[in-house]
Amino acid sequence: MVNFEYYNPARIVFGRGTESETGRLAKECGATHVLLHYGGGSVKSNGLYDKIVESLRDAGLRFTELGGVKPNPRLSLVREGISLCRQEGIDFILAVGGGSTIDSAKAIAAGVVAGRDIWDYYMDGSLKVEGALPVGVVLTIPAAGSESSDSSVVTNEEGDYKRYIGSRHLIPRFAVLDPEVTFSMPPAQIANGCSDILAHLMERYFTRTPHVDFTDRLLEASMRTVLENGPLAMKNPCDYDVRAEIMWLGTIAHNNLLGAGRIGDWGSHDIEHELSAMYDIAHGAGLAIVFPAWMKYAYKVHRVKFVQFATRVFDVSLPLDDADAIVAEMIERLEGWYRRMGLPVRLPDAGIGSDRLGQMAARCVEGRGTVGNFMKLSESDVAAIYALAL
Amino acid sequence: MVNFEYYNPARIVFGRGTESETGRLAKECGATHVLLHYGGGSVKSNGLYDKIVESLRDAGLRFTELGGVKPNPRLSLVREGISLCRQEGIDFILAVGGGSTIDSAKAIAAGVVAGRDIWDYYMDGSLKVEGALPVGVVLTIPAAGSESSDSSVVTNEEGDYKRYIGSRHLIPRFAVLDPEVTFSMPPAQIANGCSDILAHLMERYFTRTPHVDFTDRLLEASMRTVLENGPLAMKNPCDYDVRAEIMWLGTIAHNNLLGAGRIGDWGSHDIEHELSAMYDIAHGAGLAIVFPAWMKYAYKVHRVKFVQFATRVFDVSLPLDDADAIVAEMIERLEGWYRRMGLPVRLPDAGIGSDRLGQMAARCVEGRGTVGNFMKLSESDVAAIYALAL
Repeated sequence: MVNFEYYNPARIVFGRGTESETGRLAKECGATHVLLHYGGGSVKSNGLYDKIVESLRDAGLRFTELGGVKPNPRLSLVREGISLCRQEGIDFILAVGGGSTIDSAKAIAAGVVAGRDIWDYYMDGSLKVEGALPVGVVLTIPAAGSESSDSSVVTNEEGDYKRYIGSRHLIPRFAVLDPEVTFSMPPAQIANGCSDILAHLMERYFTRTPHVDFTDRLLEASMRTVLENGPLAMKNPCDYDVRAEIMWLGTIAHNNLLGAGRIGDWGSHDIEHELSAMYDIAHGAGLAIVFPAWMKYAYKVHRVKFVQFATRVFDVSLPLDDADAIVAEMIERLEGWYRRMGLPVRLPDAGIGSDRLGQMAARCVEGRGTVGNFMKLSESDVAAIYALAL
Repeated sequence: MVNFEYYNPARIVFGRGTESETGRLAKECGATHVLLHYGGGSVKSNGLYDKIVESLRDAGLRFTELGGVKPNPRLSLVREGISLCRQEGIDFILAVGGGSTIDSAKAIAAGVVAGRDIWDYYMDGSLKVEGALPVGVVLTIPAAGSESSDSSVVTNEEGDYKRYIGSRHLIPRFAVLDPEVTFSMPPAQIANGCSDILAHLMERYFTRTPHVDFTDRLLEASMRTVLENGPLAMKNPCDYDVRAEIMWLGTIAHNNLLGAGRIGDWGSHDIEHELSAMYDIAHGAGLAIVFPAWMKYAYKVHRVKFVQFATRVFDVSLPLDDADAIVAEMIERLEGWYRRMGLPVRLPDAGIGSDRLGQMAARCVEGRGTVGNFMKLSESDVAAIYALAL
């Protein structure tokens, strides 16, 4: 186990009807004028918008709206939000939505108080975010874990760059999680969300840090939970209990608790980010394509970890003296799970051919030389992984 | 799953050498004059005291000492600490020790700002703690989980009452956890600590709340971790990796994360508190006596949960159609683990006879009628459980 610091002060308010507490929670954070930030029309059509507005009014809070966040949130809208906040004297950002809306809200929150253009922080890892307006969340899509994470991913549509920043100042002050809000999610969104949650767990699981038994076991417990509940949510979208498991898991999977004391991989996330930046496919779908390919390429550098994963998470019980067979069987089961969720597992399944793979591989390592920690991946490694996904 | 709120802002600083950061961490919390609160001589003999004092001095902090905390911390010392803090204008309490020292520190911290005598809050559940001085922790004994929990247990030696309070104001601001500090713990303390950690997990696990699969699995992962690492720590007290697993687990086991969405039992804790208040035995030892007896008495109200526990945590693989046999086998394995740790599993093992069992049962339910949630236990139920422990 390596030395670590764990700090997550996000207040989670979980369960049926909790969205009515939004105004009170924002007020307790000192809000007076709220930016109500959201995506498309779903929050209006499913009644959530009205409940939030009522809750803000009940708490006596002024608010200004900024809708229109798209999946893979755009820098242009972030810049618009920053200007709006400065003009209006907004002191609190409320994100009502999924990871894209929350990440956009965090970018605005940091941008309002930043000394430079916010995109500089995304492009230059040496620049540190030193503050941000407080952010609150009403979560509608369990997936990204952004509701209590310290990170934000934004896409600059001028050049299709997708990059992230991380800072404790970006951890939301509170997150309201009502599983009933997720009942109206389209099936593809459920599938993408579960894929993203599983990926957050696998990125942390595949570490070269030795002696991390406890967090290994917590991660295995978490992965089994999403593997079991994901298909149930696809079948019965209005099963509260199933949705509650997935929603709480989505938060825990990415609030840094399960990464404590271990160095995660994150190579597959970086490789996927190029896919979704270039082709605007859903992050969860991209991860379902990238992970099996990454596993096939990377497992040989530390087979034992993969054997543990295959036996404890996927119940593979082939003889222990044939690690390659065990891992191959596990990858087939993982791909089978992705398919059962209706997700693509090869690039052509998402309508992507081989023509821009080299370009994506070059961008993926641009400015950093390699990606990933379990196995340090150079440009040629990344290109080989894209090729394995064909 | 039931609605819940989860909030734990304790900053955990974990790993080798982290005690040198104590002064800086206290200063970041606004400390100017620190009460340095500790137990006996072990922190002085093992060099920790000197490191802490140096760290406080390096940070330019004034400090006043109050040592002498005993296991099952005494109200008299708490009252002395409250007076001292008020006289000296102390604004920060630093607990260097295990659960007893931290609980004593929390009682002092709340008592300094409370409007009434602090014991009133322990005796009257309707009185709420509305504030406290900030508390920091340098942990020396992984066990109680008090380093990031919201509770404090104190014994009033006038009458041998042992009672607790809970409040978010009591959550420490930071906790420094260096596994190396635990190398010098005597074997009995390791055993008691592991028993306490296991008990915190079992109290949360044995719930009647349905649909808590995710937290069930997290708890199972955690229980396996202490069951496996506990005996290893007894054999090799200076194995850093083993101690690190136990130390981090001890915190997670009791910071409320694993109780999210479920109503825990806590009957065994209440039953044990009477034992340690009456006979001044270690809490962990008392739990090893109480839990098997509680299980034998309570499992029949919801056998399925016990069967899941026996199969997933203790790998009992007897035919599923004989729940009684499965549970009996699990209890034997649990008792075997306690014995392997050198813990008592019957009252006579700790030199306790039957003469005061009735008196303890009466006190246990005094002012509340019943204890426990998995099965509501009346005075006669508690007396029967004590009898099963003979």
